[in-house]
Amino acid sequence: MSLVTCRFRPWVLVFTADERLLRRLRRAGIYAELPLPGERDDLPAALVLPRTEEGFWTPEERELFFRFRTAGVPVLWEEGAAPPDGETFLSGTRENAFVSFSDDEGFSQLLAALRELVGGGPAYTPIAFAERCVAELAAHLGEGRAVVALSGGLDSAVSAALVARALGDRLVPLFVDHGLLRAGEAEEVPAALTQILGLPVRRVDARDAFLAALRGLVDPEAKRRAVGETFICVFEREVAGIPDVAYLVQGTVYSDLIESVGRGGVKAHHNVGGLPERVSFTLVEPLRPLLKDEVREIARHLGFPASLVERQPFPGPGLAVRVVGEVTAERLELLREADRIVREEIGSSDVAPTLWQYFAVLPGVRTVGAKDGRRREGEVVAVRAVVSEEAMSARAAELPYELLRKIAHRLTTELPAVARVVYDVTDKPPATIEWE
Amino acid sequence: MSLVTCRFRPWVLVFTADERLLRRLRRAGIYAELPLPGERDDLPAALVLPRTEEGFWTPEERELFFRFRTAGVPVLWEEGAAPPDGETFLSGTRENAFVSFSDDEGFSQLLAALRELVGGGPAYTPIAFAERCVAELAAHLGEGRAVVALSGGLDSAVSAALVARALGDRLVPLFVDHGLLRAGEAEEVPAALTQILGLPVRRVDARDAFLAALRGLVDPEAKRRAVGETFICVFEREVAGIPDVAYLVQGTVYSDLIESVGRGGVKAHHNVGGLPERVSFTLVEPLRPLLKDEVREIARHLGFPASLVERQPFPGPGLAVRVVGEVTAERLELLREADRIVREEIGSSDVAPTLWQYFAVLPGVRTVGAKDGRRREGEVVAVRAVVSEEAMSARAAELPYELLRKIAHRLTTELPAVARVVYDVTDKPPATIEWE
Repeated sequence: MSLVTCRFRPWVLVFTADERLLRRLRRAGIYAELPLPGERDDLPAALVLPRTEEGFWTPEERELFFRFRTAGVPVLWEEGAAPPDGETFLSGTRENAFVSFSDDEGFSQLLAALRELVGGGPAYTPIAFAERCVAELAAHLGEGRAVVALSGGLDSAVSAALVARALGDRLVPLFVDHGLLRAGEAEEVPAALTQILGLPVRRVDARDAFLAALRGLVDPEAKRRAVGETFICVFEREVAGIPDVAYLVQGTVYSDLIESVGRGGVKAHHNVGGLPERVSFTLVEPLRPLLKDEVREIARHLGFPASLVERQPFPGPGLAVRVVGEVTAERLELLREADRIVREEIGSSDVAPTLWQYFAVLPGVRTVGAKDGRRREGEVVAVRAVVSEEAMSARAAELPYELLRKIAHRLTTELPAVARVVYDVTDKPPATIEWE
Repeated sequence: MSLVTCRFRPWVLVFTADERLLRRLRRAGIYAELPLPGERDDLPAALVLPRTEEGFWTPEERELFFRFRTAGVPVLWEEGAAPPDGETFLSGTRENAFVSFSDDEGFSQLLAALRELVGGGPAYTPIAFAERCVAELAAHLGEGRAVVALSGGLDSAVSAALVARALGDRLVPLFVDHGLLRAGEAEEVPAALTQILGLPVRRVDARDAFLAALRGLVDPEAKRRAVGETFICVFEREVAGIPDVAYLVQGTVYSDLIESVGRGGVKAHHNVGGLPERVSFTLVEPLRPLLKDEVREIARHLGFPASLVERQPFPGPGLAVRVVGEVTAERLELLREADRIVREEIGSSDVAPTLWQYFAVLPGVRTVGAKDGRRREGEVVAVRAVVSEEAMSARAAELPYELLRKIAHRLTTELPAVARVVYDVTDKPPATIEWE
C-alpha cells in the first residue's frame, strides 16, 4: 500500500513536540512540521529547537535530528532548550541562539532568521497549499478511478474536493449511511456534497448492517470496533462493484497523526483512517500535513456551506457512542430526536457561538416521573455542552438555567419516553467530552 | 388491632378537601379536620363548606355531611360552594352564608362565627395539642410496654417523645439500622434521640439483612417492598424479645393520611405506617391529626436539635432508591460518600436556605473519563436540588455553576470511582424529586 499526499516546500522542522510554535510559524507564512516518524525525507530548511516543558527526546526524534544535522541543515535554538543526547555544539556556539521564541520580539527574530533560510520561496498559507496540491495531484496521479468515503465530516469532504478538482469525474464519491448520524444529516450531507463536488454522491444505505453489528454490544470499545469493521466491510463490497479503482481518498489530517502516532510511535501508520493494510489501492491523503483550522479555511475558500464548515466535532461511531450501553433502532431514534431538540434550542440561543460542542446523550437509565398526575417510568436524557480551544481540555459550559429548563420542557413533552433531563457539569479532565 | 390517637376539642369539619383553609383555620386557633373516612364520631362544632375547585363529593363525604347535619351541627358556607346531592336548604336560607372565605374580611367573619360556635374552648395551637395529648396518653394507656421504631425521621421521634413523657421508661425506643441512611446518621440519630427521650435508644444492626433482601432487585417497587418487608421482619423479631409489649408507637401524621387514604378511600387505613394487620398490639399514633409543620413546631418546643427538625424529607427505603438499579454494599457506600460531599458543599453555600431538598443519586451508568492523562471508566453521580413549598410540585434549583463545578471537582477527585457528574434540571412534574 503506497501513499500519495501533498507537501509544501520549503519547510522547517520543529522539535520536540511544540504544536503551539508550529501553529504560530504557519500563521506567519513559514511551513513547519513536527518530527512524525517516517513522514518525509527531503531536507528541511532549518531545525528549530524551542525550550519546551516536554524536554525529552524519543530515539526517533534523535535519529531524525542527527540525520538532518549531519546533512548540514542549520539549527536554530532557544536558550534553555534541551538538545538530544550527544549534541554538544549548542552550548559551544552563540550563532543561531535566541533568547526566546515566545515573546513577540524573540519570535520576530526567529521569523526573520527562518525567512532568510527558506529563501525566496512562496509564503505558506492553507489556500496556497491547496492550490499547489491540486496541481500536484493532477500531475502525479496516474490512470484509474479514485474512490472516497464521505462520512459527513469536513476532512474527507475537503479531501474529496481537492481530488475532484484534479481528477474530475474519475473520482467516485460514496456516502455510507450507517444510520448513526444526527437528525437530517443523512439527507443533507450527500445533497450538499453533490453540489460542492459537482459530482453525484452515491448514498449506500447500510443502516441495517450497522444495527445488526451493534446488537447485544455494551462495551464502548466493542461498539467502536463493530462500527469500524462494518464500515470497512460495507465499503469494500461497494468498491468491488466499481471498475478500475486505483486510488482511495482519505481525509487524514495532521491532528489525527499527532494523536494516533504521537511521539515515539513505533512505526509510521499510513493508516489512521481505519482501512486495513490489505487494501491494494494507493491511498491519497491530500490534507495529511494540515491542521483542523487550516482545513476549515480551505473549505470556506472552496465555498462549503457553513453547516459543514462549522460542523461540530462528531465521533466516528456517531450516535452509537452516545447511546450508552446497547444500541437498538428504538433507542437510536429516541436519541436522534432528543439531540435534534437540544441542538435546536442551544443552537438558536445567544451562547451557541461560545461553545465548542453541544449534544444529547442517552445514558440508559430508567427513572420515575409523573405525567398527568400519574407515576410512570421513562428515560433520562443528558445534555452536554462544552467550551474548548482544541478539545484536549474542555470546560462544561455555563448554560443559562432558562435555556436548560426550556430544553427539559421540550424533551419531556415532545418525547413521551423521556422522564428526566440532566446536565453534565464535568470538565475534561477528569471527564471526557463524549460519554463513551 | 385498635388505635389510640390524640384529638383536639372543640373541632370543626371542613369540606370537601380544602387543605389550604384547614391550615389557615388552625393557624388562627380553630382546630379543623378534613373528612377522612372512619376518623371520628364525636360531633364537630360546625361544618364548613368552602367554594373549592374540586367541587365534587365522594359518597363517604356526603354520608358524613348528612349524619352531622341531621344531628343539628350548623353549616357555614361560602357563596358558590357546591352542596352535596340532596342538600336543598343552602339556596333557601341566607343564614350562615358568607360572601368569601378567602379574602381577609370574609375570613375574619368566618373566624368570628366559628369562635362563637366552638364556645369558650381553648384556642388550638400545636403546643396546646401536644400538652393535652401527653395528659390523655398518660390517662388512657393501660399496663404494659410501648415500643417505637425510630427511623431517623421527625414524625416517629416526636411521637416517641410524647409517649415517653406519658409512660416514662415503659417506652422502649428501637433504632433499626438498615444501612440505608446517609453518612453519619446511623450514629448521630440514636445518640440525639437518647438525649431527647431521656431513654436509651437500642440500635438494631440489620444492615446485612437489608442488603440480602435487596440483592438482585432492580425494579424500584420490588426494592421498596423488600425494604418494607425486611423492616417488619426485623422489627417483629426484636419486639418478640421484649416482655409485656402492649403498644406500638407510630409516627403517622395527617399529611400521610391525606396522601394514602385521600378522598374516597374505600376504608379506614389505620395502618399507613407499614405494619401488617396481624400485629396484636394497640397502635399509638399521637400525631395522626397534625400537619408536617405543626410537628416541626412541637419538635422545636421539645428541644429537638436543628439537624432533626430541619432534616430534609428522606424516603422510607432510604438510599436504596437513590442507587438506581441493584443495590450492593459497594455502590451504597459510594453513594453515601458522594451524598456527603454534595450535602457538605450545598449545605455550606448561600443557596442552602432556599432549598427544599438536595442530595446525590447513583444512576448506575458507566462512562469514560480521563485521569492522569489515561482513559478510564467510572460512575456517573447525579446531583438533585429542588425548590418547593410542599413537595407536590418542585422546581429544579438554579445552583450557581461555581458550586456545581466545585462539587464535580470534589466528587471526581475524592472518589476515584466517579468519572462524571450531572445535575438534574427537571421540574416536578414531569419528573419526580426522587429518581426511583
